[in-house]
Amino acid sequence: MAELDAVLDLIDSRLDASVADLLELIAIPSVSSEPKGAAGIAAAAEWLCARLAGNGFSARVVQTEGHPVVLGTSAPCDGPVLLFYGHYDVQPVGDPADWTHAPFAPRLIREDGVTRFYGRGASDSKSQHWAFVEALRAWHQVHGGFPGRIVILLEGEEESGSLSLPAFLETHRAELACDVAFICDAEMWSREQPALTTQIKGLIHERVTIRGPNPDLHSGHWGAVAVNPIRVLAGLLAGLHDAQGRVTIPGFYDGVPDIPPRLRAEWAGLAQDPSMFEAIDLTGGIIEEGYTPIEAMWGRPAIDFNGITGGNQGPERSVLPASATVRMSFRLVQGQHPDRIRAMFRDHVRAALPEGCTVEFHGVGGSSASVTSLAGPHVAAVLDGLEAEWGRPAVLKASGGAIPLVDAMTRLLGVDCVQVGFILGRDAIHAPDESYDVERLHKSIRAWARILARLQEGRP
Amino acid sequence: MAELDAVLDLIDSRLDASVADLLELIAIPSVSSEPKGAAGIAAAAEWLCARLAGNGFSARVVQTEGHPVVLGTSAPCDGPVLLFYGHYDVQPVGDPADWTHAPFAPRLIREDGVTRFYGRGASDSKSQHWAFVEALRAWHQVHGGFPGRIVILLEGEEESGSLSLPAFLETHRAELACDVAFICDAEMWSREQPALTTQIKGLIHERVTIRGPNPDLHSGHWGAVAVNPIRVLAGLLAGLHDAQGRVTIPGFYDGVPDIPPRLRAEWAGLAQDPSMFEAIDLTGGIIEEGYTPIEAMWGRPAIDFNGITGGNQGPERSVLPASATVRMSFRLVQGQHPDRIRAMFRDHVRAALPEGCTVEFHGVGGSSASVTSLAGPHVAAVLDGLEAEWGRPAVLKASGGAIPLVDAMTRLLGVDCVQVGFILGRDAIHAPDESYDVERLHKSIRAWARILARLQEGRP
Repeated sequence: MAELDAVLDLIDSRLDASVADLLELIAIPSVSSEPKGAAGIAAAAEWLCARLAGNGFSARVVQTEGHPVVLGTSAPCDGPVLLFYGHYDVQPVGDPADWTHAPFAPRLIREDGVTRFYGRGASDSKSQHWAFVEALRAWHQVHGGFPGRIVILLEGEEESGSLSLPAFLETHRAELACDVAFICDAEMWSREQPALTTQIKGLIHERVTIRGPNPDLHSGHWGAVAVNPIRVLAGLLAGLHDAQGRVTIPGFYDGVPDIPPRLRAEWAGLAQDPSMFEAIDLTGGIIEEGYTPIEAMWGRPAIDFNGITGGNQGPERSVLPASATVRMSFRLVQGQHPDRIRAMFRDHVRAALPEGCTVEFHGVGGSSASVTSLAGPHVAAVLDGLEAEWGRPAVLKASGGAIPLVDAMTRLLGVDCVQVGFILGRDAIHAPDESYDVERLHKSIRAWARILARLQEGRP
Repeated sequence: MAELDAVLDLIDSRLDASVADLLELIAIPSVSSEPKGAAGIAAAAEWLCARLAGNGFSARVVQTEGHPVVLGTSAPCDGPVLLFYGHYDVQPVGDPADWTHAPFAPRLIREDGVTRFYGRGASDSKSQHWAFVEALRAWHQVHGGFPGRIVILLEGEEESGSLSLPAFLETHRAELACDVAFICDAEMWSREQPALTTQIKGLIHERVTIRGPNPDLHSGHWGAVAVNPIRVLAGLLAGLHDAQGRVTIPGFYDGVPDIPPRLRAEWAGLAQDPSMFEAIDLTGGIIEEGYTPIEAMWGRPAIDFNGITGGNQGPERSVLPASATVRMSFRLVQGQHPDRIRAMFRDHVRAALPEGCTVEFHGVGGSSASVTSLAGPHVAAVLDGLEAEWGRPAVLKASGGAIPLVDAMTRLLGVDCVQVGFILGRDAIHAPDESYDVERLHKSIRAWARILARLQEGRP
């Protein structure tokens, strides 16, 4: 433990420099989804590559079909291979007039008892990967090595869909082979309590257009006898859930495991936190029978309707439309393969379709759920390290959202992903006046050092 | 009958002049829904007024809040008061490039065994009222009087919603008081067989917006627990009909009489006509149990969905929308008051609404069904006259459509409306190359003369 203390001391003493470096990184406008962001993307990649190189890493900027990946690798050694993922690209600024602070000129401001800095990407996600980079640097300085071989993968396209990532992972599969991937772009529970995101859902989008056998008709003349695609669609959608809120598609729940008792207990506690549902009014919502709201949100598959359209959209007109369209999303859990669910849904629709109607499907996306096994040594190290730094156990949270890159990493690298991050709602990610604070950065660097120490102890 | 023969002979001998006059009228571009049509509207009104005056009528052009009404009245006399309705305004031309023939330069063309003339308003509806005007002229010339007091009402706004008509009817209620109103803007069954339109439906439009308690949400995070207005709306719409195709709103069918056996029998015969459903593919349509398609179309109330919208309309996005909207229409039959049905529907929706949701209704229109009593002497005269001219009995047809002016006349004048006209599908009303033919004009003038003769005979 003396060696860990030395690492922590070094982290403490280097904090001002760590912060100064981070503000330099945040000042680079690395917006990935706008053409004008190209220079910032290139500059941020170069900046990070330069910072990685020489601290036990060889680092390079790898071009992809889209924005480059910054890849840092330490020398081969005994022990596990530990991959750290972050992304250096940021969301667009939106309307600069909505910002009180300049989005790419961060400075330290004492506010609400913390030392805050504002800027696009401050929280999402430059502080997140800067924390493990700084922890690894301090560790290497003290130990002259790592608790395993380290691979750092910093992506430049997360905010625009990680479109080039799967191809990159395939091409560099050998180099990226690892025992665990730490995905560092997640939330903590509260300023006082860290969290591990142990599962996220898979996602498929389906756009379904139902077409009747006729063109647009006069609804006065034919409405009582000809098929109306809006009525067919409404019947289809209404029939997708039963009165207990369960999805009625045959086989939809096949292979879905029970929510583990440990998570049910953990989530029951979290549901008591007044902050859990403060952003939402649940009145009128139908929650699958037998499950609490938090279990439905984080642990159960769901179908949702994102948009619907058909027929007349203007002043009243007696039209019986030729077609109607719904945009839907399926949130999948462990055991549900996106292709199988998609096929199952389409078969279900085709079987329910009235004679004379046709249906067109337009499928987008297709990721599986990612579930972190709580049994492994890496998760234990993370939980121990987080608890040691914060003095409170990490919350085992989950999310109803999907993160395609996690699915891609899990699928293409065949590795367990462990999602750890320190983002808070107050940080306003994706919004004007995004911010982060020095105190959280400091504790997150220390936490990563503690996690490295646990991983070192756990080596066979 | 000698006197009728004299009238018919006069009609036959004057046919060329009748046609020449009608072509003059069709050449006037009396488009009511376009500002540039104003001169044509005024010219057509003046033209008609001049043609009516002096043939037993005093005629005048009466200004309204919209386009003028041409009003012709014969001197008070014993016998019934017979009102004849027509409209002199026409639909817009649309794109002139879609016309093979000039829309306002009709000339006679021998085609398919008939002498056709093309022009906007040729069929809808200048030939319709020209027929009774010419019949009345010939009748007056032979008899020096009429089979009752005649009121001719020629409207200039039918193609733009008859918006000024109710106020005009109210203002001139005394002058327009009559025993029967012949509404001459309807279809015949086929070139070989006349028709009486014995009932049309009432109509209300409702636009319904369901709003949840939240703004747009991330559907991944909240879709499994928060109420989704699209899902609520789909459930509502799907629940409006039962498996037998009946509307489920309590009380919806209260007061609706059975379809009279005479009409059921008549319609059963018409359904055998191959032309009846040639424009439509009924596959997949749900027809109210216990009724044939033609009964459902013409004799049963119906609810239809004209448009639906809500949430994302673009590329896939995980949104749980704040609201969803449907545009609906209700087709009403005898016994259903539009205000009562509207209130009933709104109560039904409010009762079904999940807690936390709100609903906004935007109601447009509100007309009752119009049913012509088959028992009266006027209908008998019409049926006899039509059959005598065509040598085949008139079909007792109906329509699922609504004609607000018929409702206004029925309601404000308290009079039975009898709908007789000679339009055919081939005429392409509202479309490019609208047309009519001399032979039909000729027979329709003769038919009106025969009807006048029957009315004369039937005088007490």
